[in-house]
Amino acid sequence: MSSWEETAAKKRDQLFHKIPTEWVLPKEILDRAKDRLNLTGSFLEELLDSHTRRITSLDSVELVDAVSNGSFTAVQVATAFCKRTAFAHQLNCNLLEILFEPALERARELDCHFSKTNKPIGPLHGLPISLKDQFHVKGGETTMAYVGWIGSFEGEKGTGKEGNFESELVRELVALGAIPIAKTSLTQTLWCAETNNNILGYNWLPHNQELSSGGSSGGQGALQALRGTTLGFGTDVGGSVSIPAAFNGLYSLKPSHGRLPFKGVPNSSPGQHIIPTVVGIFGTDISCLQFGFRSLMAAKPWLSDPHVLEMPWNEDATSQIEDRSKKQKLYFGIMEDDGIVKPHPPILRAVRMVKEALRAKGYKTLAWHPPSHSESESIHSGITNADGCPDVIKRLKLSGEPVIPELETELGDEPQPPISLPQLYEWMRRLKHYREDYHNYWMSTSEGDDDENPVDAVILPVAPHAAVIPGKWYHYTYGNLANTLDRPTVVIPVTTADSHIDLFDLEYKPINETDRNNWLSYDAEKYAGAPASVQILGTNLGEEKLLRLAQAVVDALNDYKLGL
Amino acid sequence: MSSWEETAAKKRDQLFHKIPTEWVLPKEILDRAKDRLNLTGSFLEELLDSHTRRITSLDSVELVDAVSNGSFTAVQVATAFCKRTAFAHQLNCNLLEILFEPALERARELDCHFSKTNKPIGPLHGLPISLKDQFHVKGGETTMAYVGWIGSFEGEKGTGKEGNFESELVRELVALGAIPIAKTSLTQTLWCAETNNNILGYNWLPHNQELSSGGSSGGQGALQALRGTTLGFGTDVGGSVSIPAAFNGLYSLKPSHGRLPFKGVPNSSPGQHIIPTVVGIFGTDISCLQFGFRSLMAAKPWLSDPHVLEMPWNEDATSQIEDRSKKQKLYFGIMEDDGIVKPHPPILRAVRMVKEALRAKGYKTLAWHPPSHSESESIHSGITNADGCPDVIKRLKLSGEPVIPELETELGDEPQPPISLPQLYEWMRRLKHYREDYHNYWMSTSEGDDDENPVDAVILPVAPHAAVIPGKWYHYTYGNLANTLDRPTVVIPVTTADSHIDLFDLEYKPINETDRNNWLSYDAEKYAGAPASVQILGTNLGEEKLLRLAQAVVDALNDYKLGL
Repeated sequence: MSSWEETAAKKRDQLFHKIPTEWVLPKEILDRAKDRLNLTGSFLEELLDSHTRRITSLDSVELVDAVSNGSFTAVQVATAFCKRTAFAHQLNCNLLEILFEPALERARELDCHFSKTNKPIGPLHGLPISLKDQFHVKGGETTMAYVGWIGSFEGEKGTGKEGNFESELVRELVALGAIPIAKTSLTQTLWCAETNNNILGYNWLPHNQELSSGGSSGGQGALQALRGTTLGFGTDVGGSVSIPAAFNGLYSLKPSHGRLPFKGVPNSSPGQHIIPTVVGIFGTDISCLQFGFRSLMAAKPWLSDPHVLEMPWNEDATSQIEDRSKKQKLYFGIMEDDGIVKPHPPILRAVRMVKEALRAKGYKTLAWHPPSHSESESIHSGITNADGCPDVIKRLKLSGEPVIPELETELGDEPQPPISLPQLYEWMRRLKHYREDYHNYWMSTSEGDDDENPVDAVILPVAPHAAVIPGKWYHYTYGNLANTLDRPTVVIPVTTADSHIDLFDLEYKPINETDRNNWLSYDAEKYAGAPASVQILGTNLGEEKLLRLAQAVVDALNDYKLGL
Repeated sequence: MSSWEETAAKKRDQLFHKIPTEWVLPKEILDRAKDRLNLTGSFLEELLDSHTRRITSLDSVELVDAVSNGSFTAVQVATAFCKRTAFAHQLNCNLLEILFEPALERARELDCHFSKTNKPIGPLHGLPISLKDQFHVKGGETTMAYVGWIGSFEGEKGTGKEGNFESELVRELVALGAIPIAKTSLTQTLWCAETNNNILGYNWLPHNQELSSGGSSGGQGALQALRGTTLGFGTDVGGSVSIPAAFNGLYSLKPSHGRLPFKGVPNSSPGQHIIPTVVGIFGTDISCLQFGFRSLMAAKPWLSDPHVLEMPWNEDATSQIEDRSKKQKLYFGIMEDDGIVKPHPPILRAVRMVKEALRAKGYKTLAWHPPSHSESESIHSGITNADGCPDVIKRLKLSGEPVIPELETELGDEPQPPISLPQLYEWMRRLKHYREDYHNYWMSTSEGDDDENPVDAVILPVAPHAAVIPGKWYHYTYGNLANTLDRPTVVIPVTTADSHIDLFDLEYKPINETDRNNWLSYDAEKYAGAPASVQILGTNLGEEKLLRLAQAVVDALNDYKLGL
C-alpha cells in the first residue's frame, strides 16, 4: 500500500472504532446487504430494536416536541439516531466523521439543562443532525474528502484548530439545541454529481445499490435515505444539495445566497464568489425544511456573518401564500423538458403527476419556456471552472492521492491555466443578462393571469434521470440552473421509477448527441425503485414564500395520490 | 480645430440653444461671475425674479406638497427650476443635457392629470430632478462625458435607441411623478474624484471657484449647490456621490448594492460586479433623501430589475431608531483620522462638532479604530482597476479625444494588461475577509454598551480635505470605504472652512509621504468658504435605519449650533 492508501485505511479503521461494539453488524448481515438492491425500509428497520425504530420514525418537529415536553430525553433520541446512523454507515459507507461520543455528551448537557429549567435550550433542542464533511464541528476532523486533510486542519498540521474549530453554521445549530452526530461523505473536489473519494470509495444509492447517491453531498443524501438523521446540511454551487436530495427521495432547500452563513467553511475555488456556494438543508419530510430554516433565522446569522443579509423570517410571505392557496389562486410554471435533453420516463411522469395534482387543486399552470438552458449551462460552467482548480490540485498533492476516475479527463496532474480576466468579465456580463432575461420572462407571465400575478414558482426536473447509473451523467443544467439564477429551490420526491410503467421510449428521436446519450442510458429495469423527484424554483430571497408553496405542492400531491 | 473638438463645440452650442432666449444671461453678468469666488446664495438669487426665487427655495417634500394640493402647478414649478438650472449652467457649466422642453411637456401632462382627477400621479408628482449624464432619459442623449458618444446611443449610431431609451431608474422616477429637467456633467471615464471632460471642461465648486466640485458626479453636486434641483441622482463605485455631495455642501445617500435599480445604465468596466456601482441620491436637505428613497421603494424596483432585492421600505427600522433616539440610546463610532492621512483642520473641526453635538444630546460615542483603511484601499484599487480599462480606451478612441490631464499618468493610449484571474480571486478573498473583520470589530462594540448594542453608525470624513484644490488629491480611502464594505453611507454638511479658525497646523509631524502631501496642501485662505462635511456609515442593507440616524445627527447638530 502506498502512503496515501495507508492513511485512508487508517481513517476508515478509526471511523469503525468510533462505533460502539454493540452496534457493530455481523458479517452475515453485511453480506446479505451486499446482495440486495434496496437497503431502505424493512431491511434496515428489521435490524433495529423497536425503541430505536419508534424514535427514528419521528420527523424533526416531532422529535424536538418530544424532547421539549419530556416524552423522551435527548440522550434517548441521540442514542437511537446514533445507532441507526452506525448501521447506515456499515451498510452504505457514507460517513467521514463519527461524533457519537461528543453527541451523547451534549445530549446529557441538554437533559441536565431541561431537568433544571424545564425549558428547551432552543428551537432545535435535542435534534440529532448530520452535516457534509465540509463543515467544521468541534470534536471531529474535516477531510472534505481529501486524504491529505486527514489528521490536520484544512491540510495544515499544528494550527491549534484541529478538532477545535467550528463553522458558523454549526455554532448556531448547536446553540439552537441541535446535536451533530456525524459528518457525511462527499465527492473529492466537490466537482462531480456522483459521490466518490479515495477514503471511502463510491457511495451507492440505498434504494438501489447499482445507482449513484448523487453528489457532491451524496453521503448526506444516502444517510438520510436510511433515516440516520431527519435534518442535515450540505453545500451547493451546482446542484450538490438538490441532486442527492432528488436521487435519495428526500426534501431539500437550496436557498439564495445571503440567507444561511457560510463563514468558516472551506471550499473549492475559494476566491470564486460570482456564483457563490450556499448552505442547503436536507430533510426527510417537507416540514423539516421550514423548521430548520426558520430556526436558523431565529439565530440571527447576520450578526455573526456579514455575508448574510439582515432578513428575519418573513411570516407575511407565508401568510400570503396560505391565503392565495385557500382561494385556489396559486400559479405554477411547468417544465417537463428544457428542449436540450428530454428527461427519462420516470422523471417526465413525476413532473406530469405534479402538474395534474396542482390542476386538481384548482391551481393554474403554464407551460414554461424560459431563456435557453444552454446559455445557463455555458455561464455556469464558464464561471465555476474559470480558475483551473489550482487549490484542488494542491490538496490532492498533499497526500499524492489520485484524482477520482470520474474527473480524470477533466483534471490533470497540474492546474489548467485560468481563463483571463476579460473572459471572466464577459461571463459576468452574460450572467447578469441571463438573470435579467429569466426575470423578464417570469414577470411576463402576469399578462396571462386574471389577477395580474406572475407565476409563484416553477416545477422542473432536477436531472434528466433518477439516481444516475454510474458514468451516465450527460446534462447538469436542470440541477445548476437555480445556482446560475441565485434563486431558491426546493426538491420534493414524487414517485419511484416503475419498470412496468416507465417504459423505454423506442419512438423518441433525440435532438442532439447529449440527448441521444441520455435517452440511450435509460434502462427501465435498472432504474426500478429509484426515487423520481422534481424541484420547485422560486424567486431570489423568497425562501419563506417558496417553503410555503412547496408545502402546498406536497399537499396537492398527497391528495392526488389518495384520489381526492 | 480637430474633429473631436468640433463635435464637442457643436454639443456645447446645442446645449446653449436649448436655453430659451429670455433666460440667456448677458455677458456682463457672466464676466462678473468669473471674477467672484462664490456663486451660491445672494449672487445667484439676485439674478432671479422673486417668483422663481420663492419656488426654488422650497425643498422636495414642500414642492410635491405644493403641487399636489394645487398651491402651484407642475408647470410653474418646472419653469422655475428650469430657469434656475439654466442660470446655474451658464455660470458653472455643469450640464451635458438640457431637457427643458420635454420637462415642461411632462409638467403640462401632470397638471392635466391633476385637474381631471384632483390627485397627484405619484409620490414625486411634479418634482423637478436632475441626473448624472450616465442615465438614459427619453428626449435627450447620454454622453457619459465621451465626445464619441455625442449623437449616438452609447457610441453606436442607428440603433433606434438614440434619445428613445430610458434607464430603469428613470422610468420609475417618471412613473412616480418626477420630472427630469437636466443631465449633469461628470468625469471622463468616471475614474477621478474631480470632474473634468473634453466636452465642458473642468467643473468648479460654486462656493469657491478655485476648488473642485468633486467627482465623478461633480456636475450633479455643482448644479444642486446652486439649487438647480432639490433631488438628483448619481452613481458611486468609489465615492462618486459622497465626494461631490460633501464638497458641495449637500446631503447624499449611497445605498448598499441591491436597493436601487442600475438596469439600463452604461458603466465603466461593465463586467466588474465585485464592488458594484450603485445609484446614489443627492438632496439639498436631509428630508429629500428619505423622501426620494422611500418613494422609489414604492415603485417596487425588484419587479423590473432582478438585481434589486425584494425589500420594501422598512418602517420598523426607522421606528426603532426613533424610539432609541428618544431614550438617548443612540451610539456612534467617531473617526477623526484613519491613521494614514490626517484630515485638514476644517474637516477635523466638522467631525468634532458632530461628536460634541451627539454627546450634548446624551448619545454615546466611541473612538473608532477599525481594521486598517490601507487594506481597504488596496482591495478597492486592486478590484476596480483589475481589467486595465479596455472599454474606456475604446470609448476615447471613438472620437480620438485625449484622456483628461488628471488621468494621463494612469491611462495610456492602450489598455493596461488586466491582472490574472488568480490575482482577482485573491483580491476577492481579501475583500471577503476585510468585510468580516470590519463586521467583527463593529459587533465587538456591543461589549462596552449597557444594552449590549453595537454602535448604530460611524461618523467619519468623506475626504481628508474640503473641496479639493485641483490636483491635490492624495488619499481616497475615506470616500471609497463604504463601497469596499458595501455599506450605506449618508453625507451631511456640517460647517464651512474658516480661515480664522482652521489654521494650518505648523506643529504637525506627518507620518508618511501621503500624509505629508495632504498636510502641505492645506491653505487656510484658499479653502475659505468650502463646505466641510462628514459621512455617517451604516450597516449593509440598513438604509432605512441609517436615514433615520442621519436625521438624528442633523437634529443634534442644529440644536448644537443654536446652543441648545
